[in-house]
Amino acid sequence: MGSTTALEHPFDLATDLTPAGEGRFLGRTSPGYSNMVGPFGGITAATMLRAVLDDPRCSGSPLSITVNYAGPVADGEFTIDADPVRTNNTTQHWVVTMSQHDAVVTTATVVCALRRDTWSDTEITPPAVPAPEAVEAAVTPEFPAWLGNYEMRFVEGGVPFEADSDGSPTSTTTLWVRDTPARTLDHLSLTAMCDIFFPRVMLRLGRMVPAGTVSFTVYFHTDAGQFPSDPTPYVLATARGQHFGNGFFDQSAQLWTADGTPLATSHQVVYFKG
Amino acid sequence: MGSTTALEHPFDLATDLTPAGEGRFLGRTSPGYSNMVGPFGGITAATMLRAVLDDPRCSGSPLSITVNYAGPVADGEFTIDADPVRTNNTTQHWVVTMSQHDAVVTTATVVCALRRDTWSDTEITPPAVPAPEAVEAAVTPEFPAWLGNYEMRFVEGGVPFEADSDGSPTSTTTLWVRDTPARTLDHLSLTAMCDIFFPRVMLRLGRMVPAGTVSFTVYFHTDAGQFPSDPTPYVLATARGQHFGNGFFDQSAQLWTADGTPLATSHQVVYFKG
Repeated sequence: MGSTTALEHPFDLATDLTPAGEGRFLGRTSPGYSNMVGPFGGITAATMLRAVLDDPRCSGSPLSITVNYAGPVADGEFTIDADPVRTNNTTQHWVVTMSQHDAVVTTATVVCALRRDTWSDTEITPPAVPAPEAVEAAVTPEFPAWLGNYEMRFVEGGVPFEADSDGSPTSTTTLWVRDTPARTLDHLSLTAMCDIFFPRVMLRLGRMVPAGTVSFTVYFHTDAGQFPSDPTPYVLATARGQHFGNGFFDQSAQLWTADGTPLATSHQVVYFKG
Repeated sequence: MGSTTALEHPFDLATDLTPAGEGRFLGRTSPGYSNMVGPFGGITAATMLRAVLDDPRCSGSPLSITVNYAGPVADGEFTIDADPVRTNNTTQHWVVTMSQHDAVVTTATVVCALRRDTWSDTEITPPAVPAPEAVEAAVTPEFPAWLGNYEMRFVEGGVPFEADSDGSPTSTTTLWVRDTPARTLDHLSLTAMCDIFFPRVMLRLGRMVPAGTVSFTVYFHTDAGQFPSDPTPYVLATARGQHFGNGFFDQSAQLWTADGTPLATSHQVVYFKG
């Protein structure tokens, strides 16, 4: 596609957008990032954010994004409309819509912010884990395809559907993860990584059930210039479900650098049958 | 105002809306729910949700809401536009905008859902606390005014700005809370209660600093028919900050019924100076 900033990394190609007038961008789904049905939610979220970052009106760097998966995204082309509804001194508020054939398939709101140095503290703590090299890299299934873009080293709560099991009393998953091939971290790749956790309900039940994210939020704790410079950075990612019932559950996640700096906290509510 | 469903409770009056064409509602800020600057964020969020629930096109009951506080809400009238951008069998997706004098002051996305009985479990646990009657009701400051609408019984992490202090090593607040005068719980009052926590940064620093919610999300774990029938229901509410830095912090909260059923989980990212 037409962006002059596209790199050759599959992630950058998958999120590449072509400007088509003020606030409008054209994109296309990537088979390499496909999920059970439609694209991996993380790549859709990253693409929604990329429309904002590609827009010349963008001010500041991402502070938060909420993505609502309104309907299935069909393989092929899509249109993203990004509207900076309010720009303040410190924050800029965007409403973003992805549509196909005039039907809305995804909505998002994005807040960008100009950060400044303040008092700082982290109350949460990263899980105690072995170094990534001491944890075996998982051989993930070939399907869904998007798994092939991530190296995953599970410390707790690995792939739940490799074999039927009795399930697990808790839904916690903790893993080391990085892009494969390697790619330096930024807000786009971090957004996608916040959605790499298998649906928690499958861990609990020990089997595959229909499930899909409905609403997904990321709070970014890292400014644009604060990402690790490591070109092959491992991210420590942990998530668990909070409440399951009535066909939905919610999940909270934390993503950390290898040296224990919080990159992002993330939350989602997920539909399931089971 | 013109709604025929308005009760005389101050909360219902404060969130009352007058229909003004398909998807458009007119409202007015309430002095009794004013904050330091503009209205209490919880009442604004509840009013955004009420526009969806008042809309005859609404299908299902609230599953999630994300509210972005885009700019200051001035005292006086406002317009809410609510657009059901996608209706599926199980979920309905709304984009909602509040404006004053043609400037966007608040945006929101709302997901409503038709729930059905499924496997259920709660992995989080409510904090161990005394019964509400065993905890002293706080004498909250007269300013900001919105505090007067809630009875608060703090178990941990009370009002941080009653007197200067050295601050606290953690930002956890746990309290029993209910509307005053009493009101049965519903999705609207629960939305507002998810935002009743003082900015966590003030607890940590032990003093008032400028702070304001930027983005606020609620996941509802209670269907419309599942709220306690108690007309004077206490809610057990707990929240803490996760990471503070660069002028922003995030907070996660849980709200429980008195008998330990999760009502909602909620998250927000907050601007601060300090």
